Amino acid sequence: MTHRAKVIIVGAGFGGLECAKALERAEADVTVIDRENHHCFQPLLYQVATAALSPADIAWPIRHILRPQRNATVLMEEVRGVSPQKKCVHTQFGDIAYDYLVIATGSTHSYFGHDEWSRYAPGLKRIEDATRVRRSILIAFERAEVVPDQDEQRRLLTFVIVGGGATGVEMAGAIAEVARQTLAADFRRIDPRSAHIILIEAGPRLLPTFPLGLSEYALKTLSRVGVEVKTETLVTKCDANGVDLKDGRIDAGTVIWAAGVTASPAVRWLNAEADRAGRVKVGSDLSLSGYPEIFVVGDTAAVTDKGGQPVPGIAPAAKQMGTYVGKLISARIAGREWKKPFRYMHLGDLATIGRRAAVVKLGPLELKGFIGWVFWSIAHIYFLIGLRNRFVVAFNWFWDYLTFQRGARLITDPPDVGGSGRDAKV
Amino acid sequence: MTHRAKVIIVGAGFGGLECAKALERAEADVTVIDRENHHCFQPLLYQVATAALSPADIAWPIRHILRPQRNATVLMEEVRGVSPQKKCVHTQFGDIAYDYLVIATGSTHSYFGHDEWSRYAPGLKRIEDATRVRRSILIAFERAEVVPDQDEQRRLLTFVIVGGGATGVEMAGAIAEVARQTLAADFRRIDPRSAHIILIEAGPRLLPTFPLGLSEYALKTLSRVGVEVKTETLVTKCDANGVDLKDGRIDAGTVIWAAGVTASPAVRWLNAEADRAGRVKVGSDLSLSGYPEIFVVGDTAAVTDKGGQPVPGIAPAAKQMGTYVGKLISARIAGREWKKPFRYMHLGDLATIGRRAAVVKLGPLELKGFIGWVFWSIAHIYFLIGLRNRFVVAFNWFWDYLTFQRGARLITDPPDVGGSGRDAKV
Repeated sequence: MTHRAKVIIVGAGFGGLECAKALERAEADVTVIDRENHHCFQPLLYQVATAALSPADIAWPIRHILRPQRNATVLMEEVRGVSPQKKCVHTQFGDIAYDYLVIATGSTHSYFGHDEWSRYAPGLKRIEDATRVRRSILIAFERAEVVPDQDEQRRLLTFVIVGGGATGVEMAGAIAEVARQTLAADFRRIDPRSAHIILIEAGPRLLPTFPLGLSEYALKTLSRVGVEVKTETLVTKCDANGVDLKDGRIDAGTVIWAAGVTASPAVRWLNAEADRAGRVKVGSDLSLSGYPEIFVVGDTAAVTDKGGQPVPGIAPAAKQMGTYVGKLISARIAGREWKKPFRYMHLGDLATIGRRAAVVKLGPLELKGFIGWVFWSIAHIYFLIGLRNRFVVAFNWFWDYLTFQRGARLITDPPDVGGSGRDAKV
Repeated sequence: MTHRAKVIIVGAGFGGLECAKALERAEADVTVIDRENHHCFQPLLYQVATAALSPADIAWPIRHILRPQRNATVLMEEVRGVSPQKKCVHTQFGDIAYDYLVIATGSTHSYFGHDEWSRYAPGLKRIEDATRVRRSILIAFERAEVVPDQDEQRRLLTFVIVGGGATGVEMAGAIAEVARQTLAADFRRIDPRSAHIILIEAGPRLLPTFPLGLSEYALKTLSRVGVEVKTETLVTKCDANGVDLKDGRIDAGTVIWAAGVTASPAVRWLNAEADRAGRVKVGSDLSLSGYPEIFVVGDTAAVTDKGGQPVPGIAPAAKQMGTYVGKLISARIAGREWKKPFRYMHLGDLATIGRRAAVVKLGPLELKGFIGWVFWSIAHIYFLIGLRNRFVVAFNWFWDYLTFQRGARLITDPPDVGGSGRDAKV
């Protein structure tokens, strides 16, 4: 009896899922382990955070995605460690042995050594982050409507977004739309249009990975919808009432973190050499030095492209790495030689700024404004998983476009308060 | 200057909202206070709990519903008490005076004096209840797939629903669909179709308010899809691992409470005479004895119909009471005489059992099976608020009907665990 190779993939994000799919025809038992039951389409998390989409519109059960793949098993559990010598991963229900291991655990927010800020300035990585931010934004308006104190009203209606990359720009534009359009006529005591939205970037310009002209377009468009952009501005502290800057203070009811990421702590299991962002250094075949059967893909891997530039932590890069490793393992299992190193192909950068405004850079092509926005919308619908979700997201966008309304303006209990902890709600 | 009457409505459920709308043309300042930002369409909560719909599909921001009504203000805050003598309500941000007060705070679950059971056997009243139950059902299958112990697998795949009224029947039928159809092919180690679904009713038959023939049809249909129905069975205890019966024990991973309701504790503010279910006894004009300016509507009011039967705690009854009180207050404000007592008109009873099966009793008309199911579906779409939600719910049902899939199979963190409390997740 031949031994069927056991492949364990930890993490079902873009990298892990593509890796599993690339193993479809391999003579292997593929086990995908994730602590969530769903794969989340992170590029649209900001739309959940700003009430345009429901969580289920951008999340799919991992096991449903892999249902047709008979050699794949999905386990929802927490991996607690890896023993590279014994070739097994440790979970709460016991150890699972592997012949090949793929670490695809992604990244988390980096607060530059101040993890305590995460309490006051959530980022957007998981569905729960998005519903938490949604709650915070909607509660700010609700509470401003009931509090008598005008200074407190002003603070509540101040929204700070830290980080001027794609996520920060998208959040700032979306919050401006919520305040100036969606909620404009819903309140009686406050005017939601008076909300103060501030986007803070440490570097000299927004969207640093885009061409200068598109950065300037983003700045102009955000200013037009009332977002105040502060470049070359450093945040030195986040607390419950706002942020300290190097030169000043902003009192704010909501602070959102879009400034930096660090590799998932999961990679520490490997005791491998990591770069400053915590990403594991891997060889040109994405394997770990000394362990040709262990691979790292996506945001957890430190890889450079042909030009020596670090491969960015974006979905297409993670997918390319996942597919590469899946094919490599398939070849090895089949006894085929595999010499091709991983080559990253940069497809482009996209960011939407709001209604009818986005910036797109695809090779030599630069798009902005309405045509960029149409391109952005079609690309995102295309990359969603499942016909149902494509249809529902397209419908929600169409409806939002026509009516200026957002269908998911729902405040639900925060994760740290039980169903009866009502007093903490307002 | 004439004094503009101040009307406060506490609670924006079916009763409170209808009352506010009936005051649209009154010379009054209408203030609607709710601790949630949304009105929830409770009849479809079980569909959120069974992953067919997303929370936002059945919930709307209260202030958006009342946006066109210029004399209405919506406040999201917690009412902490009422001073009938001083004519004001107490909230966390101060006191608010009223000329007319409408209490429409609804009902909550009754555990027959065992409130500690609520921890193990959640009911369905709020959006958070539904996502909690959804989480519990989906986690049960996920966990059964990973645990090695077969007894524990069997326990996890046992679902107990306590209470054989409409909600209990609907939940049991929907869980059976999830297990036998939606999830059937998604697992590798367990067979979801082996799930054991048990519906427990204390009385002699399911759906006691329906004609006997429809009860029998519900029993037959549930049995056909694999639900075990136990009538004349009393639950004597709920704990973390299942339920004790008067004569036996069921080990179960999920217990859902659909057995009884009690009036919201809010009515205790009034120090008024209440019936056994905690509902306030009101006069034939729904006002409180001795306080002609205080009204109680919906599930919090103890009212009898023409035949001396108690008015049931269902949406149409709450709406009728809300409209009645809104009209009465409008008349009084306008100086018109109002002598008409409240008359409840029973429109009928509906319950769905699952795919292509529902029971409907409308006056002399009895429907069951496919035609009942079509009627049930159209009626529920009709009563939803907002074109967008009607469209989205209809689309989701249509999709579910064609594909047997449910679009919202999402496990998110439970309310009592923070975002980092991962270990508690599986």
